[in-house]
Amino acid sequence: MAERIPVTILGATGVVGQRFVERLADHPLFEIRHLAASEASAGKRYAEACSWRLGSRAYGGLEESVVAACDPQAVGAPVVFSALDTAPAREIEPAFAATGAVVFSNASAHRMAADVPLLVPEVNAAHLGMLEVQRRGRGWRGGIVCNPNCTATVLVMGLGPLQETFGIEAVMMTSMQGVSGAGYPGVASLDILGNIIPYIGSEEEKVEEETPKMLGGFDGESFQPAGFEISALCHRAAVVDGHMEAVSVRLQGDPPPADVEEAMRSWNPEPQRLGLHSAPQPPIRLHAQPDRPQPRLDVERTGGMPVHVGRIRRCPLLGIKFSLLGHNTQRGAAGASVLNAELAYAKGLLT
Amino acid sequence: MAERIPVTILGATGVVGQRFVERLADHPLFEIRHLAASEASAGKRYAEACSWRLGSRAYGGLEESVVAACDPQAVGAPVVFSALDTAPAREIEPAFAATGAVVFSNASAHRMAADVPLLVPEVNAAHLGMLEVQRRGRGWRGGIVCNPNCTATVLVMGLGPLQETFGIEAVMMTSMQGVSGAGYPGVASLDILGNIIPYIGSEEEKVEEETPKMLGGFDGESFQPAGFEISALCHRAAVVDGHMEAVSVRLQGDPPPADVEEAMRSWNPEPQRLGLHSAPQPPIRLHAQPDRPQPRLDVERTGGMPVHVGRIRRCPLLGIKFSLLGHNTQRGAAGASVLNAELAYAKGLLT
Amino acid sequence: MAERIPVTILGATGVVGQRFVERLADHPLFEIRHLAASEASAGKRYAEACSWRLGSRAYGGLEESVVAACDPQAVGAPVVFSALDTAPAREIEPAFAATGAVVFSNASAHRMAADVPLLVPEVNAAHLGMLEVQRRGRGWRGGIVCNPNCTATVLVMGLGPLQETFGIEAVMMTSMQGVSGAGYPGVASLDILGNIIPYIGSEEEKVEEETPKMLGGFDGESFQPAGFEISALCHRAAVVDGHMEAVSVRLQGDPPPADVEEAMRSWNPEPQRLGLHSAPQPPIRLHAQPDRPQPRLDVERTGGMPVHVGRIRRCPLLGIKFSLLGHNTQRGAAGASVLNAELAYAKGLLT
Amino acid sequence: MAERIPVTILGATGVVGQRFVERLADHPLFEIRHLAASEASAGKRYAEACSWRLGSRAYGGLEESVVAACDPQAVGAPVVFSALDTAPAREIEPAFAATGAVVFSNASAHRMAADVPLLVPEVNAAHLGMLEVQRRGRGWRGGIVCNPNCTATVLVMGLGPLQETFGIEAVMMTSMQGVSGAGYPGVASLDILGNIIPYIGSEEEKVEEETPKMLGGFDGESFQPAGFEISALCHRAAVVDGHMEAVSVRLQGDPPPADVEEAMRSWNPEPQRLGLHSAPQPPIRLHAQPDRPQPRLDVERTGGMPVHVGRIRRCPLLGIKFSLLGHNTQRGAAGASVLNAELAYAKGLLT
Repeated sequence: MAERIPVTILGATGVVGQRFVERLADHPLFEIRHLAASEASAGKRYAEACSWRLGSRAYGGLEESVVAACDPQAVGAPVVFSALDTAPAREIEPAFAATGAVVFSNASAHRMAADVPLLVPEVNAAHLGMLEVQRRGRGWRGGIVCNPNCTATVLVMGLGPLQETFGIEAVMMTSMQGVSGAGYPGVASLDILGNIIPYIGSEEEKVEEETPKMLGGFDGESFQPAGFEISALCHRAAVVDGHMEAVSVRLQGDPPPADVEEAMRSWNPEPQRLGLHSAPQPPIRLHAQPDRPQPRLDVERTGGMPVHVGRIRRCPLLGIKFSLLGHNTQRGAAGASVLNAELAYAKGLLT
Repeated sequence: MAERIPVTILGATGVVGQRFVERLADHPLFEIRHLAASEASAGKRYAEACSWRLGSRAYGGLEESVVAACDPQAVGAPVVFSALDTAPAREIEPAFAATGAVVFSNASAHRMAADVPLLVPEVNAAHLGMLEVQRRGRGWRGGIVCNPNCTATVLVMGLGPLQETFGIEAVMMTSMQGVSGAGYPGVASLDILGNIIPYIGSEEEKVEEETPKMLGGFDGESFQPAGFEISALCHRAAVVDGHMEAVSVRLQGDPPPADVEEAMRSWNPEPQRLGLHSAPQPPIRLHAQPDRPQPRLDVERTGGMPVHVGRIRRCPLLGIKFSLLGHNTQRGAAGASVLNAELAYAKGLLT
Repeated sequence: MAERIPVTILGATGVVGQRFVERLADHPLFEIRHLAASEASAGKRYAEACSWRLGSRAYGGLEESVVAACDPQAVGAPVVFSALDTAPAREIEPAFAATGAVVFSNASAHRMAADVPLLVPEVNAAHLGMLEVQRRGRGWRGGIVCNPNCTATVLVMGLGPLQETFGIEAVMMTSMQGVSGAGYPGVASLDILGNIIPYIGSEEEKVEEETPKMLGGFDGESFQPAGFEISALCHRAAVVDGHMEAVSVRLQGDPPPADVEEAMRSWNPEPQRLGLHSAPQPPIRLHAQPDRPQPRLDVERTGGMPVHVGRIRRCPLLGIKFSLLGHNTQRGAAGASVLNAELAYAKGLLT
Repeated sequence: MAERIPVTILGATGVVGQRFVERLADHPLFEIRHLAASEASAGKRYAEACSWRLGSRAYGGLEESVVAACDPQAVGAPVVFSALDTAPAREIEPAFAATGAVVFSNASAHRMAADVPLLVPEVNAAHLGMLEVQRRGRGWRGGIVCNPNCTATVLVMGLGPLQETFGIEAVMMTSMQGVSGAGYPGVASLDILGNIIPYIGSEEEKVEEETPKMLGGFDGESFQPAGFEISALCHRAAVVDGHMEAVSVRLQGDPPPADVEEAMRSWNPEPQRLGLHSAPQPPIRLHAQPDRPQPRLDVERTGGMPVHVGRIRRCPLLGIKFSLLGHNTQRGAAGASVLNAELAYAKGLLT
């Protein structure tokens, strides 16, 4: 292995931060240099600063690393992965970008900024071109690249080949989302045991605005959001990991289910063609059994990076409906940022 | 209390049968005369023939009653409540109707028959008029009145005032259904713990065909199904009782959420005006908190007979969306049949 | 109804405080005069200050009451129910007692004080006599009466008749406890969904020290803890309400299971003989089915005040083992304090 | 890889049978030759005969294999793994043993037979010597080797080093068991969601009789059960995989917790010394955090073959108590049988 690029993880102590540590512990391109978190954690050993909540090797072997504050002077690196909450991300991420780091952010703070790529490499790799516009406009050497909300990520992975092959006219999406999407401690057990909560604050709005941005165009200077109508209805379910989405779509030309299935099956977007390290092969796993995919049985497969689709069928209202599943903290968070960085590297943007 | 009408319960040993016993144990109009079930149970004491699974008084006080076979000669009564499975219901229910009983059935066997009322009293009380046509056509003194599938019942309760007030043009409904809807033993715990199952056999078809029948017209001779398009996407969730439904509708005139809420709030259909014993007051409970209704917190209120609605809001695609909840084994099964019988009594059809 | 005694509820906004409001909303002896809570809640309407989490009538009808701070001058009353956390209880409860209130406390702060009765009326009603000693010693007109930890409460209810009838030599108790015992938000869903947590901070210690105090003697001046050995192993389970306890005991004379069952069945302690409003009849419900009691099916019966026992059988090691279940926030918290107050009233200690 | 030994799997379509297929799909010593099951499955493709319920590669790649009936003439092999239910195992397993196969059985049918080794290789490898006695006595060239009940397996793994190092005088064990232990469909979701069931038929008896057999001696001719007293209290919990056990023990010499921990830490039994393929390294994983081990977080580690121990502490009653966890369908079923076979191979008994 050649020399790897040093990286800093911001917000390393939370659930998504831990997922970054897990994913980067043995990454071929990137090497964890700094773990950074809030002032409350700064100065502690990583094993003291957080309670490891994943099934994998505890602390990714970094239990003795000392956590630092999120100060770009102290913990700068060419590549930064951000698992910060929205509020701190607003100022901290630009501060790192200004010092030359490319920040791959999981936070929502800058997602809808006009010059920030909201990237899902399988779907809109070309949007990464906005990084040049951003650097020029802001006078930065680095930059900010966001991955979308976890629910929107899963959705655009399912919609990507349909937009490419047919063109989308309308989308209705009802989600049943795992509790890990709310972080830790997140959802109280008294709220969710044996229950469904038909509300997640701001989630529907995020899905409805991020999805058209991602599935829209980029002309080298600005984004043109896709023109379809979209409605999201979001629910929390008694599931640990995995967002299940019931999707109905109206497609141009009203193709039959078999054509939709074929479009998904034959989808071979750029990250897969480039063989990026975290790109799942295939990007969409199709299930033949009518009662699949299911979060507990399917979401962990192959590292949680593909999405799963089942039961593509006629929708009496919009034309096509199907079941869609993806991993909210892998594909929808840490894995998404890492894949974004791999794409940026492959395109020569990290040097 | 005047003399009560003797009733027979068919399928008395299952979960829905137990709900019938629970509801009829102290009913002002009806008195349980016979408990009937399959041959395997016939001849046993009720307490031997089944394991009581409800939180209320065990066996409704009928633990010593002897369960009989479903033979209309042996266990005839003017009113019959049927909790039979679909297959046995096909022949047994007509046999009872032929001997003069009015059968209030929870089974799906006869729901879509052209001369059988599929009744939700708040929504289509007038459909009960079909009973006369049925008697005439089949030469029966009794008859069969069905209540719909539990998911469809909850849905039409939410849609009822919208059809009356505005007229419905399109419906999209995604359900998250409690496990009690599958009976006992029903859903295996290995399938549902920490999981969502995106499929319930025939459920979407039932909702899509029963709903227009109920919300359509009756001209004294035949039903005219409502003309709107409807799409159902059904899921099983790790919930004991209660079906949560995420509903989007396109209404004539595209009314704002406040008008939709007012239509639901002021809804005062016939069973409520008649003060029927099992008719909930109000029929729709509106929730102000954005995260309600929730099955575990709300579904048992006032005997499980009202439905609950929350967060009526704009749907970018169809115009209006809202959260809907109802009790699948109360409102959606035993309670539905009992309310149907109360309406029939009030209209003089049980004498 | 004669004039009722005005009461103040301390910590009225939490889960246990809400249970107090629910229980006292229609109580024949007590009438809620003041709702008090932390400074953060003081001055708000009750409906603003807390989110009602129970299935019963929201806010017990007190949604418009203004919550006050826990100041004995401002919200004094002859009887005070305390749902405070341990730390604030240390100073606030004595302050109320000093001004003449009898404080019935669910907090752990004063449970093990040498002059504070740790009361479960069915088990050690005589311990209430310590109130006089306490008043004398502390120069108070009021006083503090504690109910025990929820797990210990359920346990001593099961052990009470065995101590009376046989004498206890040793107790082994393994608990599987509902999440409501940890308050709200309490246990994170990420921790408990599909899981068991084999640890609850300080819980084993509380059970091991409170149980002998309660089952011991009182000679008019001091308590003599019972002499038996006891070991507790406490677990959190994915259950909403109810603490299940697997109990093994060594009894004097090594009685057979039938004698143990008879001792429980015939137990008729003072609160039941006095007919206290909240005293369950019978105090112990015996279950004949081998797989009962179960928390979800049994714990809510008759207001959650009895405990449930099943499958009394030979223990190869200690002689007798059985399954025990009780409601942690009813019998083990709010209901316990209310029953304590009813006993104090019946004994003329509240005038 | 040298030539592998052909094996037959009996009961290949159930949950344990699928675990056998999963474990043997790439095993260095064994190669699946035949899949056998009941007459109902015989003649079908494996993918038709069962629904694959594991997260791993579906059908272990054998989806096209034709399932045969359990006939030793048709599907004989030198090594047989049996996932049969108790009743069919009674006759089918001896029939295979008589034709020369060594049957490694997960069924309970022959576990307590006087000449059948009940084997957990880390604990009683020497008991395998009984196979010679069995062959001699029954006139078989093959034989039957059983693994114990899943709950007993986990328990003896935790007790093994304590029996070796100190000697055990008494054991109290309360289990909280995952639903996969009951097979599929097994436990109904209506029974276990948000619940604990304090009863599993025959489970306590199995633990109480199998444990002393395993921890006892073998003098070359017969087994001498260990002399300690043992009591088991078994519960079903809302957990998918993993049996949690709360254990108290009285040990000779009353060693302190630190000595008990050291005995577990330094335990290095024969399968680990031999480096058997499925032997976990270390056999017992010790947890430092007080709230671990937990089934959902820990049980899948390193293939589910080690057991986990946490919070070794003083028991006021018996001396030592600790938390114990193991995987019921891996360590407690399929993995156990495979490890037994690996030991038998290493000892030259499979040639």
